[in-house]
Amino acid sequence: MKISSKLIKLIKESNSFLISGHINPEGDSLGSCLALALGLKKLGKNNICVLSRDPVPEILKFLPHSKIVTQKPPKKEFDVFFMIDCNEPARTGLNNIRAKKTAVIDHHVLSAKEGKSAFHKSLAASIIDPGAAAAGVLIYKVLTALKVPIDNNIATNLYAAILVDTGGFRYSNASPESLMIASHLVQAGANPRNISKEIYESSPSNGIRLLGLSLSTLEKKDGIAWISTTKAMFKKTGTTSEDCEDFVDYPRKIKGIEVAVSFRQEKEKLYKISLRSKGKVDVQKIAKIFGGGGHAPAAGCAVKGTLKEVQDRVLKVVRKAVKES
Amino acid sequence: MKISSKLIKLIKESNSFLISGHINPEGDSLGSCLALALGLKKLGKNNICVLSRDPVPEILKFLPHSKIVTQKPPKKEFDVFFMIDCNEPARTGLNNIRAKKTAVIDHHVLSAKEGKSAFHKSLAASIIDPGAAAAGVLIYKVLTALKVPIDNNIATNLYAAILVDTGGFRYSNASPESLMIASHLVQAGANPRNISKEIYESSPSNGIRLLGLSLSTLEKKDGIAWISTTKAMFKKTGTTSEDCEDFVDYPRKIKGIEVAVSFRQEKEKLYKISLRSKGKVDVQKIAKIFGGGGHAPAAGCAVKGTLKEVQDRVLKVVRKAVKES
Repeated sequence: MKISSKLIKLIKESNSFLISGHINPEGDSLGSCLALALGLKKLGKNNICVLSRDPVPEILKFLPHSKIVTQKPPKKEFDVFFMIDCNEPARTGLNNIRAKKTAVIDHHVLSAKEGKSAFHKSLAASIIDPGAAAAGVLIYKVLTALKVPIDNNIATNLYAAILVDTGGFRYSNASPESLMIASHLVQAGANPRNISKEIYESSPSNGIRLLGLSLSTLEKKDGIAWISTTKAMFKKTGTTSEDCEDFVDYPRKIKGIEVAVSFRQEKEKLYKISLRSKGKVDVQKIAKIFGGGGHAPAAGCAVKGTLKEVQDRVLKVVRKAVKES
Repeated sequence: MKISSKLIKLIKESNSFLISGHINPEGDSLGSCLALALGLKKLGKNNICVLSRDPVPEILKFLPHSKIVTQKPPKKEFDVFFMIDCNEPARTGLNNIRAKKTAVIDHHVLSAKEGKSAFHKSLAASIIDPGAAAAGVLIYKVLTALKVPIDNNIATNLYAAILVDTGGFRYSNASPESLMIASHLVQAGANPRNISKEIYESSPSNGIRLLGLSLSTLEKKDGIAWISTTKAMFKKTGTTSEDCEDFVDYPRKIKGIEVAVSFRQEKEKLYKISLRSKGKVDVQKIAKIFGGGGHAPAAGCAVKGTLKEVQDRVLKVVRKAVKES
């Protein structure tokens, strides 16, 4: 997708920018917001605020300039409010945004309903490209169109963004374009070794023990494999819910599996569910049924009930989707 | 590194080719041999044999045309013998090779001693570039220099080669060049999703259970983390040594660890050891002390003794290397 001249004009003509990604931010959301902020600063725009409803997760604190992310909405009015890596205002989790204009840079599918909303009609500019592997790809293109030199810090944020959303270049969105941009970013100073180390090799050792316990619950049926992590396991290993973010990748490794699911206990009767597809099943549709979201290959939701109840409800829907795929 | 015109000339002037990688072949060795063979065929060279001392591992059978790999040395004499992804004749594990000329395409460091050997002096052509992320990178350059069109099958073999040797673009050798070539290969038809699925997501479910058991042995000290897999665990889960090839990646994930080690029992008193470094320690040097080999970030060896004896011997050397790093 070509970057619209409307967006470029908007950036050039404006002076102050409020930038936000989505709630529960991951690498693409935060890396993209930070890269955009750093890029705009290079254009001499010094009035920039990166706002996030939720704090920067421990594992993403290595992102260059992650400390500029604030959770406190500033009182002043901005020229432009940028919504990054999301296209529905509710996904930012923010209220009372004060900005003259709003713009969206995102790669999630825009629902037909949302596309017709007053919010979308009011946008000063909008780039929504579900063909882009990550919001980071679009930010890279925007900065390139603006002729911003990509320095080491911008490159690191964008590389992390693309890495996370392509599952380390393992998902079906690992396109020639995403690999080509990754190549440019490494050339510009991103260190794939260090970034991978921070994102994939920074587990606490009790997290690995937690993984061992979780894997012992592995079950497999009808092209689905699932594991569960309970509060008792967190207690035994001195870990928290944050330590099992990527556990769903393990049942996913099993040959012949179409969908992998992880259940992790958040409260006595509340489970967070992560869903991963190997390509045939759109798990975002499944997550949506339970009020969650994500992408076709990776999505999540939260469901109330006992483990047995939650597993029964979710796996029933997954089983149907696998059958129909 | 520019591809030598000597090598290009040798290929153009010759008609029959015997191609071999190294013993215990992995993705880079096999993918590179197969891509070279398929590329030469596109030049109208139909007299080609891909020879391997060891069989194609189960996990690599998806490589296009992997069935052409033979373990039976042909009796006839070839114009050229290609040694791929290795530079010492012993690494091929082959004897009585009958070829008029020999050429090497490799990215392993050539030892000073080996460089002065009669074998290396006798080579008709040689490309040894330790700066290349994979032998696959060099084969890509050779085929490009020969103006061979990279089709889907060649691209898949080369993408797998680069993927395996860069640890899924996570090692320090994930260079701009390797990512750029990966991008071209995806453009040419390699499917990163399917290739990753075959290489990283084809564990048998009892392999995941074996992983759970192995992780329960996790120990950590002095910047080193290690796990062990015993014959009893293989028996309990109905698995074999082949199922834990990548287990060393799990202790590697631990924050603050410099070197990860896995010990897996091959015989009553024989352990195979895999070593992984996060960058500071050259584990190839450690493996070499025990008669093994590999690269700076990833190497392996086999040591005789009880688990306790083997761990003591190996970890002592690793501890010293971490201390001095």
